[in-house]
Amino acid sequence: MFEAAELGQSISKSDFKERQPELHTRLLDLQYQVRQSGIPVIVIVSGVEGAGKGAVVNRLNAWLDTRELATCTFWDETDEERERPRFWRFWRSLPPRGRTSILFGSWYTQPIIDRAFKKSDEATFERQLAGIADFEQMLTADGALIVKFWYHLSQKAQHKRLKEDVKAGRKSFTVALTKKFAKHYDDFTSASGQALRLTDTGDCPWHIIDAKNGRYRDLTTGEILAKAFAAALERKQAAPKAAKARRKQAPKAPRRLSVLDRVDLEASLSPEAYHRELKAHQRLLGDLTWKARRRGVNTVAVFEGWDAAGKGGAIRRLTAGMDARQYRTISIGAPTDEELAHHYLWRFWRHVPRAGYVTIYDRSWYGRVLVERVEDIACSDEWMRAYAEINHFEEQLVSHGVVLLKFWLHISPEEQLRRFKEREAIPWKHHKITEEDWRNRKKRAAYSDAVHDMVAHTSTERAPWHLIAGNDKKSARVAVLKQFCARLRDAL
Amino acid sequence: MFEAAELGQSISKSDFKERQPELHTRLLDLQYQVRQSGIPVIVIVSGVEGAGKGAVVNRLNAWLDTRELATCTFWDETDEERERPRFWRFWRSLPPRGRTSILFGSWYTQPIIDRAFKKSDEATFERQLAGIADFEQMLTADGALIVKFWYHLSQKAQHKRLKEDVKAGRKSFTVALTKKFAKHYDDFTSASGQALRLTDTGDCPWHIIDAKNGRYRDLTTGEILAKAFAAALERKQAAPKAAKARRKQAPKAPRRLSVLDRVDLEASLSPEAYHRELKAHQRLLGDLTWKARRRGVNTVAVFEGWDAAGKGGAIRRLTAGMDARQYRTISIGAPTDEELAHHYLWRFWRHVPRAGYVTIYDRSWYGRVLVERVEDIACSDEWMRAYAEINHFEEQLVSHGVVLLKFWLHISPEEQLRRFKEREAIPWKHHKITEEDWRNRKKRAAYSDAVHDMVAHTSTERAPWHLIAGNDKKSARVAVLKQFCARLRDAL
Repeated sequence: MFEAAELGQSISKSDFKERQPELHTRLLDLQYQVRQSGIPVIVIVSGVEGAGKGAVVNRLNAWLDTRELATCTFWDETDEERERPRFWRFWRSLPPRGRTSILFGSWYTQPIIDRAFKKSDEATFERQLAGIADFEQMLTADGALIVKFWYHLSQKAQHKRLKEDVKAGRKSFTVALTKKFAKHYDDFTSASGQALRLTDTGDCPWHIIDAKNGRYRDLTTGEILAKAFAAALERKQAAPKAAKARRKQAPKAPRRLSVLDRVDLEASLSPEAYHRELKAHQRLLGDLTWKARRRGVNTVAVFEGWDAAGKGGAIRRLTAGMDARQYRTISIGAPTDEELAHHYLWRFWRHVPRAGYVTIYDRSWYGRVLVERVEDIACSDEWMRAYAEINHFEEQLVSHGVVLLKFWLHISPEEQLRRFKEREAIPWKHHKITEEDWRNRKKRAAYSDAVHDMVAHTSTERAPWHLIAGNDKKSARVAVLKQFCARLRDAL
Repeated sequence: MFEAAELGQSISKSDFKERQPELHTRLLDLQYQVRQSGIPVIVIVSGVEGAGKGAVVNRLNAWLDTRELATCTFWDETDEERERPRFWRFWRSLPPRGRTSILFGSWYTQPIIDRAFKKSDEATFERQLAGIADFEQMLTADGALIVKFWYHLSQKAQHKRLKEDVKAGRKSFTVALTKKFAKHYDDFTSASGQALRLTDTGDCPWHIIDAKNGRYRDLTTGEILAKAFAAALERKQAAPKAAKARRKQAPKAPRRLSVLDRVDLEASLSPEAYHRELKAHQRLLGDLTWKARRRGVNTVAVFEGWDAAGKGGAIRRLTAGMDARQYRTISIGAPTDEELAHHYLWRFWRHVPRAGYVTIYDRSWYGRVLVERVEDIACSDEWMRAYAEINHFEEQLVSHGVVLLKFWLHISPEEQLRRFKEREAIPWKHHKITEEDWRNRKKRAAYSDAVHDMVAHTSTERAPWHLIAGNDKKSARVAVLKQFCARLRDAL
């Protein structure tokens, strides 16, 4: 697969000098249009050691407007990164809409190195690559442009580059690294070849570039980037029409018996039993979360449910059992502009807990397939692919060892009405009821369908939904606590 | 100082039950108003071990609307925190305007513990406390409300609490910690007493609360917080008038000979000398930054200067000498809304580099005393106190071992005009010239004054300004490189 990049292509100094100004101007102009169109751009710079990736990065920094540009590197992992799923560090570096991130090193680096040095087996490697392809597809579907460069050197050329560097007295880390990789040239080439083949998709193709001649390498990079910019702009202009067409085709979910109808809402608990159970499980939870802290197990809990179903109350009974230093509650309201400028999962990734900590999301990424679906904020294409995106996200959490709990708090429409009225009557509950709640209430059937689909698509063995009967607050709170304890105990 | 908190105050169960609903409602109502007024609120929960700080935090979480609330804890430092100045982790946790952060543990914790266990001397401790007082004053001046609680227990009461906990079978980390602190009760009380005295300011007073009776402790906390909310709201309503009055009193800086007039703009370099010097210093810089990486020394470079003075070009010549993985260029443009919702220094703190890395700011916190001053974006009160705030910020960087470089690129008005015209003529320089540049040019005198004041107030021995003659781009670039290398070499 790399033969095409060993033809010895080169560009003369004078040629380069002549072509550079026009390319430079074109890139700036395109970058400006991309900025205006709000397309986030990810440029991946990767390839064999010694191919001059650093020089390419510097060249791109010279050609593009650096005010809209960030260069991100993934060198040593910090403990904050190590203690979270592997992709957390990449989510941190994704560009907001309209801006460009040059990734020097990327999600490909570690899998390829692990495979080349036989630290991972074939199956693991292929699974990692499939995960990467999903991830890139998700970003692309969200409007991102991903341009992937692979800089190739033949073994001979790499050897020569290495000799030159040593001769020039460059005793840096880079030379040491190149030496290490040169020894394993074949393993590295084979692993990267496979990586490129399995992730060379129509939306995010690989560009393999002969890196022997620096001018050819840089100019070709610039030309490919310019073409990618132009193509993305064209797609973006065509997009609104296509989206509209798709929206019309959206299948209307037929009214049906929902999973929620199976929840037995009659469950209840006497005040005495409630206090006994509450205290016992809060104490148990305290012990378990301390144990989780010592073992470095992180926990993510998601609370969804009807308005006034008692999410806040259940969360408070839960956190009362934990050390306040160990948990964090994230209330999901309107996104900030930094959040809006990213893929919708970005705002949830940023709060994924470190090892030993608990993050509780009061409403969550499921908003995408609930409120955004019902209120037509996301088009059907968007919310339908969200199931897979969410499963992929949660799979990453669970694979990292995160204990993931998902609660839907269910109440009957009659009980909801009673609580709405109560909220209007009691002063310290006033702030909890708004016009929106009344509006949402009218759309119960549509929400019911959405909840049913959500559970059908995202309740997996490793991340099941817990449907909690909420008409009786006391029994709901205890049920949440019990489930939380049981899942945590199983994991420890 | 703690005697007043050992009077054995207590509130009966029935009293508590009677007063709680009204307090709860009042707090929610005030919190809502605070949200509307955009006041950021910091609640510090601290005190002796065993006083029930965790219980207070839980109570506040129950009383306040948790959607506007974050509880932040400062337990073990991550390496990302350790590799930056001590306050970085606190800046990360500051609430945006209108929201409340409960800090469980705070900037007081480490200094007090270090002093109590004799790990720091009297002078260090006092310097730390003075730094804290400055920091709090800065936030308060920016409109923040800081409410500081200290929960006290007499030695006897602490001992009793400890015994109860052990008896109740609580074998957690908390008990172990309390035991450790109980042994050093006097040292801890003495250190914290001093800390409270030295930071008990009019704007941010300490509230010392007798923690023996949980109901008294919680209810008193709620009452004090409610009063603090109300007072802050009152101040906020009075503020616009006061600000206007202050703005009128702003002293008009008299035209004078500026420090910039001393810069010799005649410096120049032949193309040959330029290439030689450039290459030599880029190579040297490469070696030095590698060395800095190994030693964990971080570098911060600030570039300010006239429009078209050549900041971008100088930065690119600098970065061309470094490994692209080691530096990051941050272009300071319009702030995001998350940035606007914080103190103006927040957006710079977030990019402070980790150990061994370089952050280059293309424009910086000096915008506060340059463009914000000249364009009347900051009122005179704000930009005048910014000198001290900036010095305090930079002092923290330098004390942490950061190499801090500040460059002002200077060009004559004639040279600027020539470059503006050139930018309009050359296609790939088009994007660099806007209407705003022409407008700024007309205000050269005002900017000149601002630059002079800036240098006068913020060029310190440990963080000097380097005024670079920029009429000749080549000599300016080499001068920057030379200075950068020299400072880095001195530090290593």
